Amino acid sequence: MIILGIDPGYAIVGYGLIRSQGGKFIPLEHGSIETRAGEDFCLRLEAIYNGLRAVMAKWKPEAVSIEKLYFQNNQKTAIGVAEARGVILLAAQQSGARVFEYTPLQVKLSVTGYGQAKKPQVMEMTRRLLCLKEVPKPDDTADALAMAVCHGQAAGSVTKRAMLSERLQLRSGNR
Amino acid sequence: MIILGIDPGYAIVGYGLIRSQGGKFIPLEHGSIETRAGEDFCLRLEAIYNGLRAVMAKWKPEAVSIEKLYFQNNQKTAIGVAEARGVILLAAQQSGARVFEYTPLQVKLSVTGYGQAKKPQVMEMTRRLLCLKEVPKPDDTADALAMAVCHGQAAGSVTKRAMLSERLQLRSGNR
Repeated sequence: MIILGIDPGYAIVGYGLIRSQGGKFIPLEHGSIETRAGEDFCLRLEAIYNGLRAVMAKWKPEAVSIEKLYFQNNQKTAIGVAEARGVILLAAQQSGARVFEYTPLQVKLSVTGYGQAKKPQVMEMTRRLLCLKEVPKPDDTADALAMAVCHGQAAGSVTKRAMLSERLQLRSGNR
Repeated sequence: MIILGIDPGYAIVGYGLIRSQGGKFIPLEHGSIETRAGEDFCLRLEAIYNGLRAVMAKWKPEAVSIEKLYFQNNQKTAIGVAEARGVILLAAQQSGARVFEYTPLQVKLSVTGYGQAKKPQVMEMTRRLLCLKEVPKPDDTADALAMAVCHGQAAGSVTKRAMLSERLQLRSGNR
């Protein structure tokens, strides 16, 4: 399964594509879409949309993993980030991918097994899980890869649970 | 000039198209795009996008007039509305229209000439300016028409100012 992790924003959108296979994760491509401050906001949204549509057309991810957005008081950029996120969700929907949302806590727990993990620890663990030489830059790209790994782990455990419950049902059926 | 006014949202998106000609406003079409609660949010965004793209393709508005969004504390729906607004801005950008944003105060002042006007007064004044028999339903549609009229007035006064300043320049040039 190909998973596209996305760290939403309007100045920088990080993205990271991985293949999840037999409990292992293979990095495919990662990077960021950057838009210029001061440029017309609608043009920035269009650049994000076009950039992600191109990435999705190339890799045809089955799943898009994106951070859940919370309403935080007085965060000046929050509306712009949410507007960009709307455009990202539309691009995912149009490409036929399923969208999964995770909180920062879920990402930390999934990647490091520790809910109090700091950002550099999450990044380093993501680097190791993907056998990358270095933590990708900018941070948004590293965060996007962590989002992808988070979904890979979650989907993997769902598959494992499903297989286990199937086996248990078979056994109880045999009785 | 054809103006498309939009009242953004994710459950109901109101829209209203008017032609602004010689200081008069002619209503062309108005309505709303409604999405079902409980439906997948990405599907709702796609329905809004497709609905507005169809309206824009039909009327080819030169200008899209949309409410400026402010960050209000603890408003549960704010993120969803901003996400829908992002999709609306993208649709406008892709259709080649220019986007203009107005605050609720600007709309009140523009439509009624009175910044403390109540919602029903704004709606009634919009109805009169457009010579409509009744205030359109739902409220989102009426609000969208008020957005369109607001831009019509603003663009009209810009045009008048430009004409006036041109005439003044001509006069001073003649001296």
